[in-house]
Amino acid sequence: MKYYAGIDLGGTFIKCGIVDETGKLLVKDKIPTKKERPYEAVAKDMANFALKLATQAGVKLSAAGIGSPGSIDSKNGIVVYNNNLKWDDVPLSDEVRAVLGVPVYVLNDANAAALGEQFCGAGNEYRDVIFVTLGTGVGGGIVIDGKLFEGNKSAGAEIGHAVIRMGGEKCTCGRKGCFEAYASATALIRQTKRAMGKHPESALWGICDFDKVDGKTAFDGMRADDKTAAQVVKAYIGYLAEGIANLCNEFRPEAILLGGGVCAEGDTLLEPLKKLVGKMIYGKEGYAPVELLTASLGNDAGMFGAARYAMIR
Amino acid sequence: MKYYAGIDLGGTFIKCGIVDETGKLLVKDKIPTKKERPYEAVAKDMANFALKLATQAGVKLSAAGIGSPGSIDSKNGIVVYNNNLKWDDVPLSDEVRAVLGVPVYVLNDANAAALGEQFCGAGNEYRDVIFVTLGTGVGGGIVIDGKLFEGNKSAGAEIGHAVIRMGGEKCTCGRKGCFEAYASATALIRQTKRAMGKHPESALWGICDFDKVDGKTAFDGMRADDKTAAQVVKAYIGYLAEGIANLCNEFRPEAILLGGGVCAEGDTLLEPLKKLVGKMIYGKEGYAPVELLTASLGNDAGMFGAARYAMIR
Repeated sequence: MKYYAGIDLGGTFIKCGIVDETGKLLVKDKIPTKKERPYEAVAKDMANFALKLATQAGVKLSAAGIGSPGSIDSKNGIVVYNNNLKWDDVPLSDEVRAVLGVPVYVLNDANAAALGEQFCGAGNEYRDVIFVTLGTGVGGGIVIDGKLFEGNKSAGAEIGHAVIRMGGEKCTCGRKGCFEAYASATALIRQTKRAMGKHPESALWGICDFDKVDGKTAFDGMRADDKTAAQVVKAYIGYLAEGIANLCNEFRPEAILLGGGVCAEGDTLLEPLKKLVGKMIYGKEGYAPVELLTASLGNDAGMFGAARYAMIR
Repeated sequence: MKYYAGIDLGGTFIKCGIVDETGKLLVKDKIPTKKERPYEAVAKDMANFALKLATQAGVKLSAAGIGSPGSIDSKNGIVVYNNNLKWDDVPLSDEVRAVLGVPVYVLNDANAAALGEQFCGAGNEYRDVIFVTLGTGVGGGIVIDGKLFEGNKSAGAEIGHAVIRMGGEKCTCGRKGCFEAYASATALIRQTKRAMGKHPESALWGICDFDKVDGKTAFDGMRADDKTAAQVVKAYIGYLAEGIANLCNEFRPEAILLGGGVCAEGDTLLEPLKKLVGKMIYGKEGYAPVELLTASLGNDAGMFGAARYAMIR
């Protein structure tokens, strides 16, 4: 049996798990990132932490994978750019390998989560999977035939940055009308607040303070039979369906997995979404259907995926 | 040296070329499809035609590829559905192989054209290429690492059927606002005619009869300094840019090749398109750029691509 370290590099914590080749987790833990330090110090900490956990598990590592936020050149193990860590062309895999002494691979954290879900999460029965996470933005990753699809220089799979409504809502990327600008939790919050502004009679005002509206508020309002809330939810699921159907027509995966806080809604979100997407999907009815599922690994997806990446690279 | 038959099955003609493994064409010719016949007769003709051409070229075939319109299950060599030929679940590869005596592979004709352009056309310096054809619809194909990407059961790569403007123009697929509904030659003709209707003073009226407006008319009007025509062209290139930029962000190929009649405009189309797409593409400026080029094989792309498919399957 071979063993791999899966490292999830975040702005606050470095999380690491030791995973065997079947996807079994032996041990996991986290340490603070202390991101204000030079990258060399962060890299050294990551390596020593992985070694410590491997010793704790009583195994020798074959390789390690690191899921990092930002633009990653995974071929060369370089963090091309990361706004949060303020890293620019950081040779992360070289730095970590120098201490760890085994091959080290770096990939984007959303891509890692996709691979994790496909390897040992909700997508483990499928080879072709797209993972879509509905959080601050819309991120995700694409797995084709069990391997991560990253595009040239790992710059693809930016599924949140495809325009679904030309000239629409301003996106953080500079374009207008991106999938992310309509389907992220941030977008849902904006949609909820706008509807509240237009409907002073809405029960949404009684559910939480305006400043505390989150991705759950509109769903809660709908459950309380509020018309405005129901309209917000309906429109939101409509946006989501357009983006998901686009991915179906372009990639035709076997399954699309939804992650992020909004997915806690489960079937309240999934059932109407399935109906809409089913009508939008291209081609002969019922041919090559796409399963829509919620992701199952939560915050550990990236850690498992990073380990998986080290296994199959 | 090995030799392959590349067959392009059309509603009017069956075109066949004998191609060697370097992409050199030894001989090509075409025969009428006579599509009203049972599929068995069409398949038999295809096989005998390929044998005849191979004999003419003095070579023995190693395999054959067939680019067919419609939904294709390329794994099993089945034409799942083709509206034009009125074929439904036709086991085309089995039928042709029974006569030809070598392995026969079937793929979608737009996918074949993409593979042809990547193998020995405008994309031959790249491994990751998307081919986009602007014709009656918007079709195309996706080549990743030199191999065709088809999605589950070959139902992916329907790049014309991704919505870029929710609630917009009605598409033939039933959705509203698809890339095809804005960027096909058909869409450009509709856009030109609409502008003419609104602008009786436009010089477009002097360029051709209203009934004969085609994908070139607006460009001709622009060259004649007509304001209305220039607006139509500008808007059209704007739509095209949104769809192309979406493909860049999702797939990040090395190059996108444009085919179809509209591309005869060359740099008049490409130069403003490059500028717009350059601004829309996601990530660090200049990282992983995508070349925009016009396709070079014209109507032979599918034939070359079908042969290539037989080589690498």
